[in-house]
Amino acid sequence: MEDIATDYLDLIRNRKFAAVAEDLRGRPAPVVADIIESLPTEEAGLAFRLLDKTTSLEVFEEFDGGMQADLLSALGAESTADAFRSLDPEEQAWLLDEVPAKVAKQLVRYWKEDERAPIRELLGYPRESVGRRMAAQIIRTRPDEKIGALLHRISQLDADNDKIAEIPVLTADRKLIGTVALAKLLYADPQDTVSTVMDSHPDFFYTTDNVEMAARQALLSGDLVYPVVDREERLVGIWPLADAAWIDIYEAEEDHARAGASEPLTRPYLLTPVKEIAHSRIVWLLVLGISATLTVKVMGFFESTLDQNVALALFVPLLIGIGGNTGSQAATTVTRALAVGDIEGKDIGRVAFKEIRAGLLVGCLLAIIASLVAWPLYGSGIALVIGLTLVFNCPIAATVGGCIPLIARACKVDPAVFSTPFISTFCDASGLVVYFSIAITVLSL
Amino acid sequence: MEDIATDYLDLIRNRKFAAVAEDLRGRPAPVVADIIESLPTEEAGLAFRLLDKTTSLEVFEEFDGGMQADLLSALGAESTADAFRSLDPEEQAWLLDEVPAKVAKQLVRYWKEDERAPIRELLGYPRESVGRRMAAQIIRTRPDEKIGALLHRISQLDADNDKIAEIPVLTADRKLIGTVALAKLLYADPQDTVSTVMDSHPDFFYTTDNVEMAARQALLSGDLVYPVVDREERLVGIWPLADAAWIDIYEAEEDHARAGASEPLTRPYLLTPVKEIAHSRIVWLLVLGISATLTVKVMGFFESTLDQNVALALFVPLLIGIGGNTGSQAATTVTRALAVGDIEGKDIGRVAFKEIRAGLLVGCLLAIIASLVAWPLYGSGIALVIGLTLVFNCPIAATVGGCIPLIARACKVDPAVFSTPFISTFCDASGLVVYFSIAITVLSL
Repeated sequence: MEDIATDYLDLIRNRKFAAVAEDLRGRPAPVVADIIESLPTEEAGLAFRLLDKTTSLEVFEEFDGGMQADLLSALGAESTADAFRSLDPEEQAWLLDEVPAKVAKQLVRYWKEDERAPIRELLGYPRESVGRRMAAQIIRTRPDEKIGALLHRISQLDADNDKIAEIPVLTADRKLIGTVALAKLLYADPQDTVSTVMDSHPDFFYTTDNVEMAARQALLSGDLVYPVVDREERLVGIWPLADAAWIDIYEAEEDHARAGASEPLTRPYLLTPVKEIAHSRIVWLLVLGISATLTVKVMGFFESTLDQNVALALFVPLLIGIGGNTGSQAATTVTRALAVGDIEGKDIGRVAFKEIRAGLLVGCLLAIIASLVAWPLYGSGIALVIGLTLVFNCPIAATVGGCIPLIARACKVDPAVFSTPFISTFCDASGLVVYFSIAITVLSL
Repeated sequence: MEDIATDYLDLIRNRKFAAVAEDLRGRPAPVVADIIESLPTEEAGLAFRLLDKTTSLEVFEEFDGGMQADLLSALGAESTADAFRSLDPEEQAWLLDEVPAKVAKQLVRYWKEDERAPIRELLGYPRESVGRRMAAQIIRTRPDEKIGALLHRISQLDADNDKIAEIPVLTADRKLIGTVALAKLLYADPQDTVSTVMDSHPDFFYTTDNVEMAARQALLSGDLVYPVVDREERLVGIWPLADAAWIDIYEAEEDHARAGASEPLTRPYLLTPVKEIAHSRIVWLLVLGISATLTVKVMGFFESTLDQNVALALFVPLLIGIGGNTGSQAATTVTRALAVGDIEGKDIGRVAFKEIRAGLLVGCLLAIIASLVAWPLYGSGIALVIGLTLVFNCPIAATVGGCIPLIARACKVDPAVFSTPFISTFCDASGLVVYFSIAITVLSL
């Protein structure tokens, strides 16, 4: 595949568009999609425009969400309006959230009122909610329906496998009371009613549930279709496992990149230009760099202490390294616990209490080891200063690292994004203050 | 749920076992599983032992993998042998990989030869391969089978929905030539053959494919069942999307925790004892701390330089912070690209070339900004030293950060684990050498 992509890349860069169009015409849509996805954004856009209309719609549906958003943004609304229109409403809603506002507006500009209705309904749910990502319900049943009758109705539908694998069972007033697996219907006697084979404790989601947490729960439970209900537990849509799966991957990629202080790349690494890679990193480096000037200030404040005992400078990288790592360990654990719903904002006291103790335990262990190592090499004074710094600094770093993600969540920003620069800056600066204060006291500087 | 768990916790800690057993008896298995999962390990083990035999088997199947492994390890083979025996072979194989070797041995000690066969077959595939995690095929078809006949065979099976949602289509000599969706069978004419509705370009996996990469691909494609084939493309098993989903989550949790330099917690955060949290972190802190002593050596080497110009010390935390961040950004991107299969070991040259350039670009930008800020405050000499350090150090850090995950992979260790301490140590130490060398040259110290 990579070699084919390189061939295409050469052809496109040499403006041999007729040859590209000719060659792409002979291939099935999934293959064309793979080829185009492995090209850099600009060339991908050019190749996509060379497809005839029918193929371009098929190929666009094959792309994953990130690629679709890329193409919409790169080609603009005119060249992609038809491809966009051919998607399911929940896919359209997701893309409208991802592309620049200008493009989003143009994409739906010429739609008739009734065309806008389904997407408007989805966009009425809050960002990052399950309601905004759900699919339309395709079939539902009642507990007293005969299985044979239900199977007959299904056979008239021609719906996708992944959307009818489990069918919601509703009361007369549309309240969800169960689900029934397609496989179960086949094994059962057609004369029995749905109620004999339904699961009456199905997992389901509310439209207002957070989509990232819900996707994770869905993947852990592994049901094939989740009913989505409103506050009154009336069915309003469904969420297939397959949709939850790619949303989970997309959110995880974002979290992962941001935990590493960069923005996620939208293309395969080797095909991403150096400029784009640098771009995805420079903002974070600047933010981290600017906040790190605080450490210059703190060091400057203790310059005279350093002047009296320059050996103190030797341990600065070591000590702030341990502090920073302790803080980011705590932040990692707490961010994950927040993401999976194990803790919420109101638990901040319990988190702080746990982190103070965990930090103290870790700090004391490290202090004993570090002092024993430092004593013969640098004398008892320095050994004591290093030990005490660790005892005090580890609980501070752990507590700060544990609480900042909760504060970020309370301020409605993504904890994975917001936390990194603050934790590293704060842990570095507080670590230095603790270190020099202890040094001044212990060594009477 | 949490309140119920707290009540149980109190009862168990007060040794009121009869009351716990009595109360659990009245609840359905999924609820009992939720309650036990939200207890700390020791109490969870006690509660699990209070269940009667039938319930305990049902409850054990409800637990997720991490919890099952916890219980097997905590309770030992005797109390859990029956629960273990009731699982599917692919679940047993996974658990045998996760629990301590001693427990694993005891779990299968008294099995008869024919009981061991399926699990032995799975364990014959390499660790972390799809073969080791696949499920047994339940039903297959041939292209010339009548749809009505196939539906009749399915109706005799009583298999799980998630394992028959797509059915492999094989040639007479068991080669995979397609899959057919259960839903498609229902819409079709029973007199037609399978070949009329089958997908003849299905996604599938080889038994030797890496399970983490395969799980990700499965989640992105979203097919409900993946055929697993041997080297000759003969069907040997299936991999339901639901299984791929929890494996992906489990692997992602592990990567995420390790990128944050700690081991993943197996229980909900608030229920994990402080001792366990400290335990999950201390090893990494020690490794990082010991490798950070290299920075003390480097600083010691330049002590006389520092003595002559103590102001140089002020910028040490800032500069090593930027270096470390540049390195970890590169490592994050490359680790992810490795995990999703965008790059492999042989690409190390291309990765290094890309990272040198990205690092240089970022370094030059930061150098310009930093020099302009530092000049009026600390004079032209220091400003030049800081600028040059960034120009040289960012490409070094980015290249090291980008290459170490590839080296880790080549040494067959998890890049997410191995990379963190080496990158931070190397970037810190090399950054200091660059900084002081430039300072000595520029300031003629």
